[in-house]
Order: sequence, then structure tokens, then C-alpha cells
Amino acid sequence: MKQNKYDDPEFFKQYSQMNRSVEGLSAAGEWSAFRKMFPNLKDKLVLDLGCGFGWHCRYARQQQARSVVGVDISEKMLARARELTDDSAIEYYRLAMEEVDFPADEFDVVVSSLALHYVEDFQSICQKVYRYLMPGGSFVLSVEHPIFTARAAQDWYYSAEGERLYWPVDDYQKEGLRQTQFLGMDVEKYHRSIATYFNTVIRAGFRVTEVSEPEPTPEAMAKYPEMQDEYRRPMFLMMVAVKD
Amino acid sequence: MKQNKYDDPEFFKQYSQMNRSVEGLSAAGEWSAFRKMFPNLKDKLVLDLGCGFGWHCRYARQQQARSVVGVDISEKMLARARELTDDSAIEYYRLAMEEVDFPADEFDVVVSSLALHYVEDFQSICQKVYRYLMPGGSFVLSVEHPIFTARAAQDWYYSAEGERLYWPVDDYQKEGLRQTQFLGMDVEKYHRSIATYFNTVIRAGFRVTEVSEPEPTPEAMAKYPEMQDEYRRPMFLMMVAVKD
Repeated sequence: MKQNKYDDPEFFKQYSQMNRSVEGLSAAGEWSAFRKMFPNLKDKLVLDLGCGFGWHCRYARQQQARSVVGVDISEKMLARARELTDDSAIEYYRLAMEEVDFPADEFDVVVSSLALHYVEDFQSICQKVYRYLMPGGSFVLSVEHPIFTARAAQDWYYSAEGERLYWPVDDYQKEGLRQTQFLGMDVEKYHRSIATYFNTVIRAGFRVTEVSEPEPTPEAMAKYPEMQDEYRRPMFLMMVAVKD
Repeated sequence: MKQNKYDDPEFFKQYSQMNRSVEGLSAAGEWSAFRKMFPNLKDKLVLDLGCGFGWHCRYARQQQARSVVGVDISEKMLARARELTDDSAIEYYRLAMEEVDFPADEFDVVVSSLALHYVEDFQSICQKVYRYLMPGGSFVLSVEHPIFTARAAQDWYYSAEGERLYWPVDDYQKEGLRQTQFLGMDVEKYHRSIATYFNTVIRAGFRVTEVSEPEPTPEAMAKYPEMQDEYRRPMFLMMVAVKD
């Protein structure tokens, strides 16, 4: 079975207490940038891979998407998603992202927010998403940035006084599994280079139309002054890839 | 006037002694990866922006390009290029890359090797290159990697014993001028994020078809064991962008 960390009771509890879990998209630092990358969702058929609590699914419906399918491996995440959702046009499926299977040309937009760095076989997912999308459809994705995932430690280098000196990069070209810590617990992630992210998307047939390494907004900076450090290294890599 | 460091006599002398300056492309660690990104050059009209000693110009003719134009700001570099070239199908022009002006649809392939990180206005160059290329033409470019250019120091973080601990990243989102050192002398470079490199190329009209962050080859590793550290962080970002 694929990693299903979010069904670990302690991890789920910790994750559920994060700002983004309580307040939703508005509390996610990268959301203002990610949102701008979405195409017009009105009347669209949308798939969300790694939907978690379903925030992006409900957002798509607020934007008048015709219907939304959310997929996640975690029963606990989906249970909460269903609690938070009162909308018959949103369906949630419990599946690993690698196991999804839909007919060709089924969706207009496929979204995946901060989930694909948990997946070992990115190529297979890109190929599937390309098939599921109608011509003209968009794949809008965000992952933890390769600068962020290169070292398993995923942390700053500190002075003896605890000051954040630099963001250390190492092992960049060594792609694959990283045994990392998130919310104080062991989590498996996969590091891929920037070249691999782009080439995999391109070789699946897509045209990359936009790339983002978002910075904190002035509003987020005012609310969370510790975000100052987010100017020092990118934490997220986002792109829009179109099936043309 | 644009920076013309290569006409500084001491800098030119130092640069002329680098392996890549003496032995040519085979001594450039990134060449085996860059070469693979070239389209078939047979009968093609080629432009090289920042041609330096003209190694890529002569390579293009070896690959049976019909004609090649090499552009460089440095008189000294071009004087050496001309000495090394005995081929009436190669023309060298002394110009800053920003000042180049050709008719539309003039070239099949535009190459730029490790020159564009010296340029402040990357957007204007991308727009020009797009115009100069015929439909179906390719822009094949390499730059110092944003991970490499983020900090002006452009160096490893060392232990007290001189061991390379990791590659430090800082100031990543702060694009623009970096006062760096190269060959022991002051050189001005421009840091741009990965998102900016991609979006600028894409917004000029191109389709990105390939990306590379090259690693040393096994042969290079055998010859230069210190290249081991090149696996730890990428030094170059390369891409192919097509006018389709």
C-alpha cells in the first residue's frame, strides 16, 4: 500500500490543527498565488488529486464548476471533507493518486495541491492526467520545491544562537525517497529535480504555460512576520500545463 | 555601455587559461548535456548570442549548418574567435546581446551558452529571439542556475577544516544584480528565479520542450574527481524553447 500518513491518528490530529486545516485556503500562504493559476472554472468538470479536506473541491464549486471529483488515500481526510461539504456535485473517492482510473477526456481541469511530492511515480500520474483531460484542459499543480526537498532535513542551517543563516542544498541530483519530518513525525517524500518535473510534464504531452515560486503576500507578511524568511528560498513550485 | 568584462586584460588573461578556453567544448563540463539539446543543424542558419571564442559557431558548422553568426561584446574574445576560425560561413559581430537587431524569420536556431546571466533585460532578448526565429525554430540556452546565482558569494559553505558542508541558498526571491567574483575578479551577474526564466520564455511565445540541470558525465568525473560536488547542487540551467 502507498504511504497513508494522514490516517495515522497522531499525524491526523497534528495536521488538523494547522491553520490551513482549520481556516482553509485563506490560511495557506501559497493560495493567493495558486488561485491565480486556475483557468475559469465555470461549468467545468474538475478532478482534485490528493484533495485532503476538500478545500479546493469546494472552491471549484464556488467558482461554478459543474462537478468535482476529489481523490485522497486517507479515510480520515475524506471523512472530514464530507463533513465540510454539502454539495451533491462533489464526489469524494478513497484512492491512492497512483490508482485513479478514469475514462479519457473526462475532465476540463485537474488540480493537485502539495500532494505529488508524496508520489514515487510522477511520470505515470502525468500520463494519466493527460489522458483524462479533454483537449484544451489544464493540469494545475503545486509541489514542495526541489530546493526544499533536496535534503531530507528540510530545515535551515542555524547559528549557535539559533539564527537562520542559510537554506542548505545538498544531494540535489540524487532523486528519490526522503525520510523527512513533518509535524514532528516521520513522513516519506520524493525529491525530484526541476528538470525532472518539467520534462516529465512535457513528455506526457503537455505545454507548460505558467510557472510560479510564490512569495508571501504583503497581507500574509503582516499577519505572520516569520514569513520574511520565505523570500530567502522558494518552498513551492507550481505550474500550469495544458493539453493542446 | 553594457558590462564588457572579457575585454579587461587581466580577466581575459585568466579566462583564456581556463580549460574550456584552451581545449574548447570537450573541456566544458556541461557540454555533453548541452550538445544533446541541439536540433539537427544540417543546412540551418544559426545565431550564437555571447559566442566568446566561437566554439559553438565552429561546432555548428561541423554539424553542417549552412551559416553561423556569432555575436559578442568583447573585442578580445572575437579577435581570438577569428584566429581560431577559418570558415567564410561564420561571421562574427561585435555587439552587446541587448543591441542585436536582425530581420524577422532570419534563423533556424539561436544558441546562447552561459551568457544570459550577464544580461539585465532577459525579456527583451527572448522577444527578439522569438522574432528572429523562423516558425519551428529553436532557442537553445544555458545559464548559471538560479540556485547558483541566488547568493552573490556563489560559493559553498565550509567547515572550519575547509570541508564543503552544503550549498547555501539565500535571497532567492530578490532578483537582479549580483556583484560576484569570477576568476578572482569582480563580475556583475543577474539573478533570476526559475519561474522568471520559464515565464519570460513562455510569454515571449515559445513552447519549452526540454529542460536540463546537467550532472557530470562518468568520463568527466574520472578526469576531475572534484566534480563529485556537482551532484550536490545544480550549477547550470538549460532549456530548449521552440517557436511553433
